[in-house]
Amino acid sequence: MVVRTLKWIGGIEGFLEIIDQRKLPGEYKTLRCTNVQQLYDAIKTLAVRGAPAIGVAGGFGAVLALKKVPAKASPASAGKLKQARLAEDGESRRALAVLKRDCEYLASSRPTAVNLRWAMERIEKCAKSFVGRNPSANLTQMRKAVLAEANAIFDEDVEMCLKIGQNGVRFIKNGSTILTHCNAGALATAGQGTALSVLYEAKKRGKRFKVYVDETRPLLQGSRLTAWELKQAGIDVTVICDNMAGALMSEGKIDMVITGADRIAANGDAANKIGTYSLSVLAKEHHIPFYIVAPSSTFDLKTKTGNNIPIEQRPADEVRFCGSKQVAPDEVKIYNPAFDVTPAKNITAIITERGAIEGPSVKKIARHFA
Amino acid sequence: MVVRTLKWIGGIEGFLEIIDQRKLPGEYKTLRCTNVQQLYDAIKTLAVRGAPAIGVAGGFGAVLALKKVPAKASPASAGKLKQARLAEDGESRRALAVLKRDCEYLASSRPTAVNLRWAMERIEKCAKSFVGRNPSANLTQMRKAVLAEANAIFDEDVEMCLKIGQNGVRFIKNGSTILTHCNAGALATAGQGTALSVLYEAKKRGKRFKVYVDETRPLLQGSRLTAWELKQAGIDVTVICDNMAGALMSEGKIDMVITGADRIAANGDAANKIGTYSLSVLAKEHHIPFYIVAPSSTFDLKTKTGNNIPIEQRPADEVRFCGSKQVAPDEVKIYNPAFDVTPAKNITAIITERGAIEGPSVKKIARHFA
Repeated sequence: MVVRTLKWIGGIEGFLEIIDQRKLPGEYKTLRCTNVQQLYDAIKTLAVRGAPAIGVAGGFGAVLALKKVPAKASPASAGKLKQARLAEDGESRRALAVLKRDCEYLASSRPTAVNLRWAMERIEKCAKSFVGRNPSANLTQMRKAVLAEANAIFDEDVEMCLKIGQNGVRFIKNGSTILTHCNAGALATAGQGTALSVLYEAKKRGKRFKVYVDETRPLLQGSRLTAWELKQAGIDVTVICDNMAGALMSEGKIDMVITGADRIAANGDAANKIGTYSLSVLAKEHHIPFYIVAPSSTFDLKTKTGNNIPIEQRPADEVRFCGSKQVAPDEVKIYNPAFDVTPAKNITAIITERGAIEGPSVKKIARHFA
Repeated sequence: MVVRTLKWIGGIEGFLEIIDQRKLPGEYKTLRCTNVQQLYDAIKTLAVRGAPAIGVAGGFGAVLALKKVPAKASPASAGKLKQARLAEDGESRRALAVLKRDCEYLASSRPTAVNLRWAMERIEKCAKSFVGRNPSANLTQMRKAVLAEANAIFDEDVEMCLKIGQNGVRFIKNGSTILTHCNAGALATAGQGTALSVLYEAKKRGKRFKVYVDETRPLLQGSRLTAWELKQAGIDVTVICDNMAGALMSEGKIDMVITGADRIAANGDAANKIGTYSLSVLAKEHHIPFYIVAPSSTFDLKTKTGNNIPIEQRPADEVRFCGSKQVAPDEVKIYNPAFDVTPAKNITAIITERGAIEGPSVKKIARHFA
């Protein structure tokens, strides 16, 4: 059975329940986010992760933000709110100010993730437009409109995942062995994943295949999360260390590589979890097709090439420690980029909910969105 | 300062002091092996590791074995010794029997390590030959001969390391940044290492350079050991996860790659720690020179190509756990090969204590040994 990462429970006073991915695979626990700070922390510490999932979570974060508006402004933000013409336009204006600030705050939790910023902007726009269209609406009505928008983002994500799977399934050959990296699965989306959705769809259609998954240091999303969710779905999965992929390919054990993406430039260069680029080079060397699977919202057409994608640097201790065990000396430096960029020329096809872009290029990508 | 992994302290009644590598990098502790059992355990549990280092340690193990001969045979071995014609030829014969048994026991601690068995056989041969040449020698004289042979193995290893460094140093460009994998350093030899010896030699000659080291999953010899020993020697070192090497190369941050080897075939194909092959492909893609550094004893000229080198599979729990933390689910499969094979065509040069083989081939390697 395909797992479900996040669920909004209740109405406008509700909360977001997420699978706490920090505890997997040792422990299966859910976490309740009842306010913006909890959600920010959950995103920041990767309790919930994956570009689409944190976009959806961010949408519900806006609902959480508005929970506190009816009460007085919190002390921390009182100054700002005063500037925001507190008394001038009544509660919906006040709510928009809170929303703007909290949406920005939530978006700052993962700066590379385009979906999160996109979701926050969409929610803000929706709220503004609602207020514009309904100048006399009360706060409750506005909050309902925002919740409806967050639910719409959720539903669209579920639908998007499904379509991605349907668009990608033809690339899965019966009897093949597939390598994936990190987690582009149900744990990374509201639905059944992106890269892994293709696998779930293949399984649903009775195709036989095996999966190798890179453990994906430093945070081990491959061994902790992908292996776990594929296993839940009854798929044959084997974990390897990241440095074993090349050897497997040279032994003829891999027929295709399939990964997600965090941001894709207008020319098809794709930023994804660190290590993806190396896999693309290794795949090319061994004439193995390499697929990127992502919602079309992952495209950032204003970004011309991968060179313009900012790469988030993460804390040294993610590498220096593994659990509580120290694995590198205190005094040495650590380099810990979260992502790398795979050039379009290494990508066989990019699969989205709109279809597949084979041999991606500026022209083909523009056509995909036309 | 370059660390020293092992040191014999005292004369024939002395003991072997080793750096306990199981505790690094969290804790620096030395371990005293005063008898054969302690040394066996130290090798078995990887307190001392690295093919050359355990060969040298084994040599001193023979000295430890002979410490117990003057006293009565220990209860555990009394039976065997009786069969070994206890009373027949006096104390040197008795000593040879003890030596034979303990050398075999020590060699069994790491059955695949070719250097350890080689050292044990060399010591035994030396002892036998000494007794043959000096039929009236007493036990003390024989023990001194064995200690001298163990010291000779130690000294040869130190010298071999030094020569390797001297032969490789010309490949280190001033101001360059070097990537290494696993631990081919002072912690793996009696001297200043193999691949890392080249770096120590470059530092001694005043060259400026920086080092990136792959952490080297699953056992993390890069982050735990290489980072630690380079830091002790005052070398600028940064740890990365194995999957980051490609991204670093694509950013132009790596000028050369240098690793050790565990076995090299007659055509130059080199087996080394898993992940080395991937690095060689990535280096080739980025036009970065790739060097293998190893003593000439690493060549196995009877093995024609890398296809004939057997690859040791190691326990799944090395990947499933990191320290005590479980990082992959219980139920999923793990693939854990210890080595991979880098084809000669990906190797810029192989450096040994005899010199450097640039663009290695069957012919050039044969000439290297001529």
